[in-house]
Amino acid sequence: MPADVRVIGLAGLPELEEGDDLGRLLAEACGRAGGLEPGDVVVVAQKAVSKVEGRVVRLDEVVPSPRAVELAGDDGDPRQVEVILRESVEVVRSRPPLVISRTRHGFVCASAGVDASNAKGPGTVILLPLDPDASAAALRDRLAELTGVAPGVIVSDSFGRAWRQGTTDVALGVAGLAALRDLRGSRDAVGYELQSTMIAVADEIAGAAELVMGKAANVPAAIVRGVESPGEGLAAELVMPSERDLFP
Amino acid sequence: MPADVRVIGLAGLPELEEGDDLGRLLAEACGRAGGLEPGDVVVVAQKAVSKVEGRVVRLDEVVPSPRAVELAGDDGDPRQVEVILRESVEVVRSRPPLVISRTRHGFVCASAGVDASNAKGPGTVILLPLDPDASAAALRDRLAELTGVAPGVIVSDSFGRAWRQGTTDVALGVAGLAALRDLRGSRDAVGYELQSTMIAVADEIAGAAELVMGKAANVPAAIVRGVESPGEGLAAELVMPSERDLFP
Repeated sequence: MPADVRVIGLAGLPELEEGDDLGRLLAEACGRAGGLEPGDVVVVAQKAVSKVEGRVVRLDEVVPSPRAVELAGDDGDPRQVEVILRESVEVVRSRPPLVISRTRHGFVCASAGVDASNAKGPGTVILLPLDPDASAAALRDRLAELTGVAPGVIVSDSFGRAWRQGTTDVALGVAGLAALRDLRGSRDAVGYELQSTMIAVADEIAGAAELVMGKAANVPAAIVRGVESPGEGLAAELVMPSERDLFP
Repeated sequence: MPADVRVIGLAGLPELEEGDDLGRLLAEACGRAGGLEPGDVVVVAQKAVSKVEGRVVRLDEVVPSPRAVELAGDDGDPRQVEVILRESVEVVRSRPPLVISRTRHGFVCASAGVDASNAKGPGTVILLPLDPDASAAALRDRLAELTGVAPGVIVSDSFGRAWRQGTTDVALGVAGLAALRDLRGSRDAVGYELQSTMIAVADEIAGAAELVMGKAANVPAAIVRGVESPGEGLAAELVMPSERDLFP
């Protein structure tokens, strides 16, 4: 019988400000949840990471370009679209006020991951971390320092998908675990068919964490226990390389 | 503290044949895993469902069309591509021998979900169930009859994604739970931002189950316990309606 996977929500974090020691706050939350165990993966919402990293922009300081005004249409905020364009290397699709773009990290997502934030006052938006893999690695180091256990860390966000309704949480940053599980040459779950695929295990872990993080308010992180994904991967590996991309 | 989510692998199912009582086999596996509890979701691999439903084709009985020969290129099997084309309403992208198409159900995926199956002998392929939502509903009814608990049921498969490497397991069939969680107007996991999205919770549950199903051979199903997704959804709702589709 394969071992269980457990997802344990981490609650009780305060409202976060730039410069807060998120690693310490997560370590304390892990302690309240019974402590970290070797092999655990800590999943933390991108928005929490972005807040402590100061990735917040006040819209009243943004002057929209003509292109931002055009893409915002009648229903959007041209200043917010301007921030989205600054975070993007390419607009993939747009239907005012919706913009789907490729971020500097290579992620294709709605609004370049830029979210409105009521918490920071009306008129502020939160951007993705500059380097979410580095954010994950720094949190892993801090958690190891404070708890004696170096967990895997995933920085997660909710992304829409082409052709499917609804978002699923995926990994924007990864440290201390393999992001992809290479099944090429192995047997599938039914036990008989040879696989030809790689599994985006970090995305599945992020999605599993959302099942707990989305159940209640103010659960910005979770421990996922019992997954087997040894290695040292990066979320950057989850970005489809252009030579393999059938949807450029 | 939010309640945990647990994922429990269901092992020990025999090699499946057309006409097998998959519901009974799953009920027995659930019994060995300690039994079903109210609110549980049973996730079962599409391939298991397709086998008992007889969705297996012998390639030596398939005559490929000229289009199948063309799309197969030098490296593909034109008979397998012919089966893929028969399962498809539209070819979305192709790069021989890779075909990404829209199935009759509306799913956009590689090979219309058609997999080679060594288990059924070389030269056989397994198709998606004709109506995976109906398959899920029938399994739910059978599990309720045999165990006294009517679990949610998800029929899952591994799908690739545009722009991201690796597959994640998603829901092809859903019964006894909401496929989408509507967050519009609610607060997010950080507790402060108003949401504007729907969460594809059935896809996240399928992905969480894969974390256990993919860890060992011959674990074609799992119980996911502790998710909250009350309602009566269908995987058909996870197909992006054409009027909202920015990637037709």
